[in-house]
Amino acid sequence: MSISSRLNELGITLPTVAAPVASYVPAVRAGNLIFTSGQLPFADGALSATGKVGADISPDDATAAAQQAALNALAAAAAEAGGVDNLSRVVKVTVFVAAGPGFTGQPAVANGASEVLGAIFGSGHARSAVSCPALPMDSPVEVEIVVEVAG
Amino acid sequence: MSISSRLNELGITLPTVAAPVASYVPAVRAGNLIFTSGQLPFADGALSATGKVGADISPDDATAAAQQAALNALAAAAAEAGGVDNLSRVVKVTVFVAAGPGFTGQPAVANGASEVLGAIFGSGHARSAVSCPALPMDSPVEVEIVVEVAG
Amino acid sequence: MSISSRLNELGITLPTVAAPVASYVPAVRAGNLIFTSGQLPFADGALSATGKVGADISPDDATAAAQQAALNALAAAAAEAGGVDNLSRVVKVTVFVAAGPGFTGQPAVANGASEVLGAIFGSGHARSAVSCPALPMDSPVEVEIVVEVAG
Repeated sequence: MSISSRLNELGITLPTVAAPVASYVPAVRAGNLIFTSGQLPFADGALSATGKVGADISPDDATAAAQQAALNALAAAAAEAGGVDNLSRVVKVTVFVAAGPGFTGQPAVANGASEVLGAIFGSGHARSAVSCPALPMDSPVEVEIVVEVAG
Repeated sequence: MSISSRLNELGITLPTVAAPVASYVPAVRAGNLIFTSGQLPFADGALSATGKVGADISPDDATAAAQQAALNALAAAAAEAGGVDNLSRVVKVTVFVAAGPGFTGQPAVANGASEVLGAIFGSGHARSAVSCPALPMDSPVEVEIVVEVAG
Repeated sequence: MSISSRLNELGITLPTVAAPVASYVPAVRAGNLIFTSGQLPFADGALSATGKVGADISPDDATAAAQQAALNALAAAAAEAGGVDNLSRVVKVTVFVAAGPGFTGQPAVANGASEVLGAIFGSGHARSAVSCPALPMDSPVEVEIVVEVAG
């Protein structure tokens, strides 16, 4: 099944890719790999959540934000590849979680990104999940991915 | 000398790769590169250390934990490559250190990962070492690597 | 125009690459990609700035430090490629900013890296910008890049 069919089956519409700013772009292809920029949980032009996980927002809300950021990253990769069906698999996902020293539940938050990508591609990816004291615009999460293009 | 011979000579037995969880896998190959997940210092099924470096645990203990996490990462890459002797070199190592703003000794901690990988492969790798306010399960370190497969 | 001509036109002289320490190296090539180590804003052998952004040093000074670190990263990649003109484009830039939870201006700081690299190469790159509680040697920024070698 193609990735676009799988997206349809899951009822997922990839978000619009945010217009690139001057100094960097949403994704770059090098050989068969596409590296995306770190993506925030923008939805319809605004962050879907802000604040530090475990203090300002709940882990569950951060998990939903990680899913949104992952879909934004996938949309960026798809645009760079000339369509989502040109992507063969997600290679690596890095999830940065804005949280203080008392929060050690990064894996559950990162699952918001991993589970939706796993459902779409039907395969696993390598993943790192870490914390940061803060992220751009006070976003609770930032997600970057490395994706392989079909050979 | 093969990598497995070198491991024998160094008296290092690669750890068992932790069973993959549902949403991601320990390592993924794309072309001749293998990207691992961020690895914690698990040994025999439990973290070999927990806490923030410089507060809860000493830099020396964190350095030992970084070595353990690096060996776990190498084991994950070796499994993905079909054997450690199929790996030609370590390309990149990223070491995340759980520590507060007063701790700036990340390089010494990261050397726990770099030195063992350097001894095994007999070559250098690019490396980044940074801090995080916290890591999953209150681990003091998390190590991810990019490894090249012999062409 | 070649990259070296563009550097001349911009009045930029690439810094000398710091001597590699024992356990890792400034950059490694794998296929057509070069991964650099995380680079600090060293200039003439000393950090051009130290401290936490927004507390000890201003965002503007951190932006300048990010530019310096990016040039150090580019110099490392150029050395690994056998000359800057062998580099075709910057694929990915990751900027780590040492700052507390109240600082959310990572993008402006990271622009110090992105803008100089964009001016040199005339093309965009993917980018992630995050915060850390501290960086090696109390550096305000650390920059790593992935660069593509001309095929």
